[in-house]
Amino acid sequence: MLLVTNPHNIFYLTGFRGSAGVAVWGASDAALWVDPRYTLQARGDAQGVEVIEEKGSLLKAVVRWVRKRKPGRVGFEDGHLTWTQFRFLEREGRGSFRFEPASGIIEDLRFVKEPSEIARIREASRVTVETFEEILPLVKPGIKECDLAAEIEYRMRQKGADGPAFDTIVASGPRGAFPHARASTKVLRKSELVIFDMGAILGGYASDMTRTLYLGGRPGGRIKRLYKAVLDAQQKAVESLRQGVEGNEVDAAARRLLRRRGLANYFTHSTGHGVGLDIHEKPRLGKGDKTRLCAGCVVTAEPGIYIEGFGGIRLEDTVVVGSGGPEVLTTAAKDGWCIS
Amino acid sequence: MLLVTNPHNIFYLTGFRGSAGVAVWGASDAALWVDPRYTLQARGDAQGVEVIEEKGSLLKAVVRWVRKRKPGRVGFEDGHLTWTQFRFLEREGRGSFRFEPASGIIEDLRFVKEPSEIARIREASRVTVETFEEILPLVKPGIKECDLAAEIEYRMRQKGADGPAFDTIVASGPRGAFPHARASTKVLRKSELVIFDMGAILGGYASDMTRTLYLGGRPGGRIKRLYKAVLDAQQKAVESLRQGVEGNEVDAAARRLLRRRGLANYFTHSTGHGVGLDIHEKPRLGKGDKTRLCAGCVVTAEPGIYIEGFGGIRLEDTVVVGSGGPEVLTTAAKDGWCIS
Repeated sequence: MLLVTNPHNIFYLTGFRGSAGVAVWGASDAALWVDPRYTLQARGDAQGVEVIEEKGSLLKAVVRWVRKRKPGRVGFEDGHLTWTQFRFLEREGRGSFRFEPASGIIEDLRFVKEPSEIARIREASRVTVETFEEILPLVKPGIKECDLAAEIEYRMRQKGADGPAFDTIVASGPRGAFPHARASTKVLRKSELVIFDMGAILGGYASDMTRTLYLGGRPGGRIKRLYKAVLDAQQKAVESLRQGVEGNEVDAAARRLLRRRGLANYFTHSTGHGVGLDIHEKPRLGKGDKTRLCAGCVVTAEPGIYIEGFGGIRLEDTVVVGSGGPEVLTTAAKDGWCIS
Repeated sequence: MLLVTNPHNIFYLTGFRGSAGVAVWGASDAALWVDPRYTLQARGDAQGVEVIEEKGSLLKAVVRWVRKRKPGRVGFEDGHLTWTQFRFLEREGRGSFRFEPASGIIEDLRFVKEPSEIARIREASRVTVETFEEILPLVKPGIKECDLAAEIEYRMRQKGADGPAFDTIVASGPRGAFPHARASTKVLRKSELVIFDMGAILGGYASDMTRTLYLGGRPGGRIKRLYKAVLDAQQKAVESLRQGVEGNEVDAAARRLLRRRGLANYFTHSTGHGVGLDIHEKPRLGKGDKTRLCAGCVVTAEPGIYIEGFGGIRLEDTVVVGSGGPEVLTTAAKDGWCIS
């Protein structure tokens, strides 16, 4: 028997998309508990489970249901359930059954995407690319980072996105050195690099893309060399995205190139991550990651360099690992990065 | 010694706002571990803690630091730490110190807001109200729920919000019967009720407001009676928000009124919740809640009725419990709800 509490896993397995709910799959039946806020929605959307409305504690109701079925062992999502919830279940179930950590089972199913899932990520990527292209004319000295971020999220919604996949990053000048800078009230200035890291959620599925622009026409030789290095490293990472390759090999492909250009120390994060219902999911394309990619995996390739006081450059695409090779879904151009 | 992993609690205590990080407060010193993505940001923002950059496992680094200080006992946030993380800490710390559940300590500090926190919630509420008033002219038959939601979130951002406090709800006609409906592609139609549940995050703090409109000028007697009942119940809830009152009493105030009008069965959730760094935080203004309100608490009052196939009506304000009585921060009008 398997207890599922991670909302994305519940959505994956049932089609019900709410912020709260608990589901159990038994040998011969399955149920989804929701509070009254979600009853009608769950009855409309959830497939393959009995929907049970519970006004009190969902976990308490779950234990009653489980106990009747005498399962012996019940797997739970140890990477999602909090210690408090676990202790509650353990206490309530004592003597009837045993809880065992079983995180990763659903995540393993989610690792390889079905065509219908890839179609949604493709749609989310299309919306991301179109939005980026639309806002390009607004990227000028004088505009605030947060106004660009607002514009981006608004236009993604207008194009059918459920919303942004994460807080849109617009990081200009020295702020580009913070890989996870939020968009701030800082105004864009001439001769600055600006990082855009953006993605949409569409039908529950995420996309993720980063582009870096230079404001002011003609950058100096150093900036050109740095941009070219990141561009080449990103290309290497994308090319390496093939069936059977391990996560660490993708990371090594990007890192090797930056090392040759003397920039490895400025690349302070891993090269990419899986994308699906979560914006960050299995695999992690970083050092030590032994996950082997398969056809149907969707991942990002996103090397970057970050220099304190100077700024940053990052380029990122969402890529499908196909049987015939990698397919880049986020097709916005990477040349034409110097805008005047 | 206290181990803090909840990002909102870390922000509350240090001023550092990132999606990842672990902090420990010891008897004589305190530290915040972040991965390299956040090093510069944490060094700039975090107060009262030493910022330690860690490229590997943050929790492993934490255990090394803690062990050196021989604390005997280490409190952890059992309502936030996952079972997997707890097991890791327990194993690593074995023989040196003992982990003890300590959730709620920081939440108790957060329960009563400082004037600077109320100021931010006030700002977030002002942005919410102004945005609602601005989009009113767009609320017409023919527009999609999701386009209104996009418009709302865009304008909140333009007014300085970090973003929406939650997925904006626009639920029209029968969809209003789902208390947590997302905005869908459904088109608004004449003679429908439309629920707007919206809030902004500003400087990290949330606001939360719901208004219900009727499209088409002159509603029938039933809709008028239902709206009046919710309006009166909401008024009762707001009036009851005084120092020393328990959460369940606020809930009872709203529920009693709806019961008198024969509508108690349609009110399927609790009357309100605390608002602060989290959109839902302590206290819960519901049955059985014994939390006593104090001056400086900020909560919502949001009774509603939900009728399958018909729709819903909900009215909600963010309210400060002051020493002189309740102060409503979300001041958008509740009359003029019938628009043509």
